[in-house]
Amino acid sequence: MTDERLARRRAQRRERQATQAVHQLTQPLHTLPTYELVSEEGLHKIHQASLTILGEIGIDFYDDEVLAILAEHGATVKGSTVFFDPTSIMQYVAMAPSQFTQLARNPANNVILGGNYVCFAPVYGPPFVYDQARGRREATLEDFQNIVKLTYLSPYLHHSGGTVVEPTDLPTHTRHLDMVYSHIKYSDKPFMGSVTSGPNAADSVKMAEILFGAEAIAEQPALVSLINISSPRRLDDRMLSALKVYARARQAMIITPFILSGAMAPVSVAGTVAQLNAEALAGIALTQMINPGTPVIYGAFQTNVDLQSGSPVFGSPESQLALFASAQLARMHNLPFRSGGMFASSKITDAQAAYESVQVMLPAILARVNFVLHAAGWLEGGLTTGYEKFVLDCELLGMYHKFLQGLDLSDEALALDSIRAVAPGGHHLGTEYTLRNFRTAFHRTELFDYNSAEQWLEEGAKDAETRAHAKYKQLLESYQGPDLDPDVDAALLDYMAQRKREIKPEF
Amino acid sequence: MTDERLARRRAQRRERQATQAVHQLTQPLHTLPTYELVSEEGLHKIHQASLTILGEIGIDFYDDEVLAILAEHGATVKGSTVFFDPTSIMQYVAMAPSQFTQLARNPANNVILGGNYVCFAPVYGPPFVYDQARGRREATLEDFQNIVKLTYLSPYLHHSGGTVVEPTDLPTHTRHLDMVYSHIKYSDKPFMGSVTSGPNAADSVKMAEILFGAEAIAEQPALVSLINISSPRRLDDRMLSALKVYARARQAMIITPFILSGAMAPVSVAGTVAQLNAEALAGIALTQMINPGTPVIYGAFQTNVDLQSGSPVFGSPESQLALFASAQLARMHNLPFRSGGMFASSKITDAQAAYESVQVMLPAILARVNFVLHAAGWLEGGLTTGYEKFVLDCELLGMYHKFLQGLDLSDEALALDSIRAVAPGGHHLGTEYTLRNFRTAFHRTELFDYNSAEQWLEEGAKDAETRAHAKYKQLLESYQGPDLDPDVDAALLDYMAQRKREIKPEF
Repeated sequence: MTDERLARRRAQRRERQATQAVHQLTQPLHTLPTYELVSEEGLHKIHQASLTILGEIGIDFYDDEVLAILAEHGATVKGSTVFFDPTSIMQYVAMAPSQFTQLARNPANNVILGGNYVCFAPVYGPPFVYDQARGRREATLEDFQNIVKLTYLSPYLHHSGGTVVEPTDLPTHTRHLDMVYSHIKYSDKPFMGSVTSGPNAADSVKMAEILFGAEAIAEQPALVSLINISSPRRLDDRMLSALKVYARARQAMIITPFILSGAMAPVSVAGTVAQLNAEALAGIALTQMINPGTPVIYGAFQTNVDLQSGSPVFGSPESQLALFASAQLARMHNLPFRSGGMFASSKITDAQAAYESVQVMLPAILARVNFVLHAAGWLEGGLTTGYEKFVLDCELLGMYHKFLQGLDLSDEALALDSIRAVAPGGHHLGTEYTLRNFRTAFHRTELFDYNSAEQWLEEGAKDAETRAHAKYKQLLESYQGPDLDPDVDAALLDYMAQRKREIKPEF
Repeated sequence: MTDERLARRRAQRRERQATQAVHQLTQPLHTLPTYELVSEEGLHKIHQASLTILGEIGIDFYDDEVLAILAEHGATVKGSTVFFDPTSIMQYVAMAPSQFTQLARNPANNVILGGNYVCFAPVYGPPFVYDQARGRREATLEDFQNIVKLTYLSPYLHHSGGTVVEPTDLPTHTRHLDMVYSHIKYSDKPFMGSVTSGPNAADSVKMAEILFGAEAIAEQPALVSLINISSPRRLDDRMLSALKVYARARQAMIITPFILSGAMAPVSVAGTVAQLNAEALAGIALTQMINPGTPVIYGAFQTNVDLQSGSPVFGSPESQLALFASAQLARMHNLPFRSGGMFASSKITDAQAAYESVQVMLPAILARVNFVLHAAGWLEGGLTTGYEKFVLDCELLGMYHKFLQGLDLSDEALALDSIRAVAPGGHHLGTEYTLRNFRTAFHRTELFDYNSAEQWLEEGAKDAETRAHAKYKQLLESYQGPDLDPDVDAALLDYMAQRKREIKPEF
């Protein structure tokens, strides 16, 4: 493969991409009213508390170069603690775009992040997988690729995500290469880069360059990567080292305080949200100091700790309140917002898991979240990716696609002629109106059972997890991957082989 | 027992009642912003369509006396079809109070229905029960009493409900007596009357009179009863006969169109809501024509039919949209609103049941529903009351109580001192602030498992249904009923015995 051939292919791809209209995207749009929990005055009060945290209490950054950058850009640095001037920090935050496009290798799958757009991505991070037949076990590369494939096959997931599981059968120091490669190889949806270190982030950027070309990804990001803040008030060296790489390469990031109230923040919702807002703004301002205009998403991963067991609790009323308030703050800052997910504390795909998941996900929809990481597959507080949970969660995502279409109030929808045509006590099954509209009238799930109890018993009295088990297996059997240009594929494999020779284990 | 003694007891009870302040109620209050899905213009458009249905298309009433009443009050009657003048019908609707108090035999359990108040009541109607050990079977009086007892024991259910299951082991023609008696005997929360016929409604009123005294219940209703409209556009003779009895006795009613879109209404959400609004207004206007000021609740039971199986689908996006729109219409009419519930199509307490339930219940909370029938225990499209589902649903109701308390934005809640006191990367477990606030900070469930996977496995790897099974049994074992005045009890038993001698089976 020559550089010229690659460049030609990229040019062809960009051309196709240019003709790709936004309406071809399957991303739902927020056109419904937003649920505004907090008054403008209340929001201002929270934000003022955040500015006090930023200006007087300070945020720690564990990276000398970053401390120098912050000092150069007007922040006050004392040791590793940084104090931000309220006006100045908000000027940097204002440099981030309110929406941007992330490239996918199939341009029809490019996603718009921010503005009115919704993007659903799968679970991120679990070292374990669960399925009904094999139970809970350590995840492997095969599991990673399976989840990438299931994500590819779902019409309701717009994004391939990142560490959909930790492939624990691979060496720690090089597995980021296999993960990025698997996203590219087995899907053509957009994906996330590695954040485990600066060099790993650089590998992610390099592989994106091989796929898209360096010029293309300088123009529009090909990676959206998850920079977690080690709350309270701390950005660690690994995350900062990745952040610098991505900001300089103008690749998008999600700056996410990871907060369990009661552990990493006060037990109060308001205090948690004030701290979360301060931390997110600090990280976001840093990205803009390094490279103004770098696309960045305001993230909020928040729930509370169970004060008895010390474990995180998902779907709690406190986290719902925090989610609504955080979304409003992100909108106030005019930034894309990431939150929500099908979170569950449950270890299996039982009633608890489902109650918890909708308790988080539906508020996320009404709060106008732009990017939902963990939109499918999350179990056990994020320690496990569940195969059955994954396909069941996707059913709910389908419902949200329909919900977000909103209420048609046209005369056709008001259907007075049809109401007139059916006699009192009659029925609308098979009316002209029904025949004209039934195909699009109701969203239909595949995995939910609406049969009579008798029929359900006859068919084996299968619970939702059992039906989902059969479904995910069938989906994986049916999987046919999107073609990957053999030259691109070879270039990626070459790069990985070279890097696997170069990278030394850390210990 | 003498009439005097009963009168004296009633007077004592009323006295206690008068000192009962509203803040002692455990009903949550709607103080959060409401989710307003439809614009004012859109609402007006739907309402205009409803007025067209009422004025031009008509509603059928299958009761001659009712037709005469409607004609007397300015409606146009042609055969059994009634056409309402838009201005006139809204004048009658305006006579209904926007909020009212329903009496409970323990005055501390009186409920306020309407306004800012939320009231949760258990499932209504199922002929079957399900529990994990015995599976699905026909419900009995023992099951009825069990559900009344579980409702009594839940701090999150404010109302004892009505036909919590059909006691199918009792004769059809007299079982209403046993049901009303069981609510009175085994609980001291407010309850619902029978709507299966006029005489059965009259029995319900009579038993309420024995309990509260005729004067007391003429002043404030002791019954809230469920008048379903047989959509499309039809009120049947049984419901109308009960409606007349309750209106004349000034007992409250919930006028509820029962609509599966695609069967009893068009497949469109807007058409369904317009029809539902017309039907509800017709029933409500009738109550006010019979007895102006009779307390009445605007009800909306709506979902869509699965066009493949013909079964109802619960938790659908279309039903969420309809719920939000219906709530807005009820508010526009200044009426208490009933909708929502922990609806599920699933036959067991699995993930499907839980996903579906929150998909309905959370919108109900955000839409500002006042009265939630079916707030616990519903399975199989309403054909089955689930014991495990019941206690699990109650956990969610607890969460909604907490959610509705909203976001405290006081300086104490913003907790800046506590944020300042914890070093970057430190933790808030055991801080002074945490110790001061931890008891009320986070709502805690009993049945959801937050333990580690290891501990959960060690404890038997129980799913939510299994844990709930143990819980409901334990609750029933622990049940100790509220004392019932022996004279009142004897009077009720006498009345029932007399009526059981009088009432003849229908066939």
